[in-house]
Amino acid sequence: MTNEAKTNQEETTQQDTQEEVVEEVFAEEVEEDTTTEGSTNELTAKLEESENKYLRLRADFDNYRRRVQLDEEANKKFRAQSLVTDLLTSLDNFERALQVETENEQTQSLLQGMEMVYRGIQDALKREGVEEIDAQGAAFDPHLHQAVMQESTPDAEPNTVTAVFQKGYKLHDRVIRPAMVKVNE
Amino acid sequence: MTNEAKTNQEETTQQDTQEEVVEEVFAEEVEEDTTTEGSTNELTAKLEESENKYLRLRADFDNYRRRVQLDEEANKKFRAQSLVTDLLTSLDNFERALQVETENEQTQSLLQGMEMVYRGIQDALKREGVEEIDAQGAAFDPHLHQAVMQESTPDAEPNTVTAVFQKGYKLHDRVIRPAMVKVNE
Repeated sequence: MTNEAKTNQEETTQQDTQEEVVEEVFAEEVEEDTTTEGSTNELTAKLEESENKYLRLRADFDNYRRRVQLDEEANKKFRAQSLVTDLLTSLDNFERALQVETENEQTQSLLQGMEMVYRGIQDALKREGVEEIDAQGAAFDPHLHQAVMQESTPDAEPNTVTAVFQKGYKLHDRVIRPAMVKVNE
Repeated sequence: MTNEAKTNQEETTQQDTQEEVVEEVFAEEVEEDTTTEGSTNELTAKLEESENKYLRLRADFDNYRRRVQLDEEANKKFRAQSLVTDLLTSLDNFERALQVETENEQTQSLLQGMEMVYRGIQDALKREGVEEIDAQGAAFDPHLHQAVMQESTPDAEPNTVTAVFQKGYKLHDRVIRPAMVKVNE
């Protein structure tokens, strides 16, 4: 008797179809005649409700599966984001340390070893999808660059980056740190 | 009529319940008597089949959701594994480069800067769940250590690690590289 109100309308149209079936069977089984059209209609309505419930659940399931798949793809693409972000400060310090100018042979040899290490780290990051943001000389783009200084010089095109104070990085198409730059007005 | 064979057995037990309902309704609606017990039984069987189909789908959906949740937890825990594994060679080279002994002030200053960078990278890895495997002096464990040499010395306990040629690393509870060691027989 539940859902009856909801299915009353469906019942009316169902009834026609049901009556056809009923008349066919009637001829053979008339002697066992202990049911009524009312209970048949009720059962038909319940069956329809049950089938609808199944179809709604199947649609929910399909949507859920699709969403899980999209989530998995995004998660895989950006899985290293927290570690990468965490490593950027070390990369900055690494680059700064490599700026030493020296005539001393031992220092030069240490620098060479450290440059190899630096490139190894950069290569590992590139393989994960990390990319440096082009900044020096580029047209200023507020999505990629953070302007921390402005200047007005006729030597450079207006609205271009004239200096980079800190490198910016993207992971795939996502900016994980904008470049800190000086912009020509 | 589909699934009829499958539900024939269920129909038999359903029939009893159905007959009770039918008898109640019969009294009021006897004048519209155009249905048969046969079609009612058939509908009841179909309804039961439909409800079972729904319950099976719901169980599948629940299992799928549980599995997705477990997958997500594991993926989150080990999300950085490929980048970490890729960085281990650079870490090895970094450590080797830091072994320089020097009296030169400029080299010392560069070394200090590089040690800071190294610690920064180590800290970032630790925050992601990366841990060095204890090896030197530990009891040999084939899950954590890879024996590349054996020796027989009375100075050390038998079956302990007497030298580490390459550090091993774990990510959470997962060994991502065993330590390469020398073992006392």
